[in-house]
Amino acid sequence: MHFQQLLLEREEQLACDVVVVSDTGMIAPDVPSSTVSMRGLVGFDVALRTASIDLHSGMWGGTVPNAARLAAELAAALHDGDHRVTIPGFYDQVRPLSAEEEASLAAQPFDEQEFRAQAGHVAYLEGEAGFSPLARIGVRPTAEVVGINGGYAGPGIKTIVPATAGLKVALRLVPDQRPDEIEAAFRAWVQSRLPTGVEAVVTGEGGVAPAVTPVDHPAMQALAETIEAVWGKRPLWTREGGSGPEEALGRMLIAPVLFLGVGLPDDRIHAPNERMVMDQFWKGLLAAAELQERLGRLRFPKRDDD
Amino acid sequence: MHFQQLLLEREEQLACDVVVVSDTGMIAPDVPSSTVSMRGLVGFDVALRTASIDLHSGMWGGTVPNAARLAAELAAALHDGDHRVTIPGFYDQVRPLSAEEEASLAAQPFDEQEFRAQAGHVAYLEGEAGFSPLARIGVRPTAEVVGINGGYAGPGIKTIVPATAGLKVALRLVPDQRPDEIEAAFRAWVQSRLPTGVEAVVTGEGGVAPAVTPVDHPAMQALAETIEAVWGKRPLWTREGGSGPEEALGRMLIAPVLFLGVGLPDDRIHAPNERMVMDQFWKGLLAAAELQERLGRLRFPKRDDD
Repeated sequence: MHFQQLLLEREEQLACDVVVVSDTGMIAPDVPSSTVSMRGLVGFDVALRTASIDLHSGMWGGTVPNAARLAAELAAALHDGDHRVTIPGFYDQVRPLSAEEEASLAAQPFDEQEFRAQAGHVAYLEGEAGFSPLARIGVRPTAEVVGINGGYAGPGIKTIVPATAGLKVALRLVPDQRPDEIEAAFRAWVQSRLPTGVEAVVTGEGGVAPAVTPVDHPAMQALAETIEAVWGKRPLWTREGGSGPEEALGRMLIAPVLFLGVGLPDDRIHAPNERMVMDQFWKGLLAAAELQERLGRLRFPKRDDD
Repeated sequence: MHFQQLLLEREEQLACDVVVVSDTGMIAPDVPSSTVSMRGLVGFDVALRTASIDLHSGMWGGTVPNAARLAAELAAALHDGDHRVTIPGFYDQVRPLSAEEEASLAAQPFDEQEFRAQAGHVAYLEGEAGFSPLARIGVRPTAEVVGINGGYAGPGIKTIVPATAGLKVALRLVPDQRPDEIEAAFRAWVQSRLPTGVEAVVTGEGGVAPAVTPVDHPAMQALAETIEAVWGKRPLWTREGGSGPEEALGRMLIAPVLFLGVGLPDDRIHAPNERMVMDQFWKGLLAAAELQERLGRLRFPKRDDD
């Protein structure tokens, strides 16, 4: 909200024809690509309370509700057996991919072994039935349990029935899901899942809408030519699973958002030992200059708000 | 195990005809009762790992396993829709109540409103279908999620796919469930519920067997008479939900374990502001002396190990 407020306050200074963002990545140095979409994000903290104090599991266990178990049941109920999100209406506004984007998605290389190693040596992949891993990350919305806690967390065991528990969920959204609608659907879902009398405080932890850039925009043509000039190959169009304020940028500045990002999948972003490959960094600088020149040659339609 | 070792080492000093334990309670000052059973207990800490590090939920969410969600699914799967424990074989060794105990159970007063208020103002009661709250606490075995944790636990939200999570479970056992058999069943159940490749370390947190005293033993008759003499009413026989080392006492000392406990349901045991009602305390002292005298008059069969 602060960011949107800033855009509103500085509207005149920020007036532009195109927005270029570099907070994204490429498939590989020899498979250049550009993002055309970032997922949206709404986060929730759910705090449950079933009693005023933790109870002795010998005296009360088996008869009183257990907040930790209820939090677990809530988390477990987020997905069905096909790993589809069970929140009613969750998928209603998901827009199918265009033919060009479908082709680009199908052309992307994917090495499952390497992907799993990069992910921290996970033993297997999972996800929504009927979709490839790349589609699950960029094209499909997801629900992730980012935290759960309740009851005793120290060494050994403590014989209690926990009275409180917490659950944190991050929902990644794709065009045309709207954060406000999804937030309302999530809140209704939580209430529908809990027995009457369980106290549940759902706190929304901000939200950003999914961002999408039309691949047929002339500025995207300039971006494709730029990448081809610097990396030697026409880029594939990809969709990133991450989220940012790009939707607000595009919507409030009334300009397409181009992604010229040079990160690589194994850069360990947001994790310890994050890196940047220097060759990508120098090419990125070159491409930024090249893109400025090409965009400068384009004629943009007069802005609506001029 | 330390306690059993002690009993073994001091076998001769401890040789006795009857064991009297006072770590239990009564239904009410005007409804005197004595416990004939304590539940057994086996606890477990389950540590799950799905990747070497937490992952960015935008880059990986929807494709990689989530340890917090798996812990939640495990916790949620402990019970079926009837609140029965789903561990295969869990109920196989549960011995039905004798007719005398059934009658005693049916005669016990139970005020749900008061019980719920004492429990910390819980909004409703739940538990295994087909059993009363008192039966669920004392007569039936239970599984309690005493702790669950995984992922981010601070304020707000963090967009990760947690790589580790923990679950702590306490199983209360009743005659004739055996801790070693139940532990093996729990471990097999955990393995059967997790996808191949998820690292699960199950640590057993000790175990005590359920204790039961035969109500037809002559010493129990002496106990009943004692309670009637001090409280003015014949006691009801009850089963407590809590656990202690009483099974080992009875088994290793080859003696019936009598429970002369004077605690009351709203004493808040193991919780802040625990109390003891003084009138019960003085009556307890009186009863202890009275019981000694009556037991002294009994003739016990020669001990097997004499």
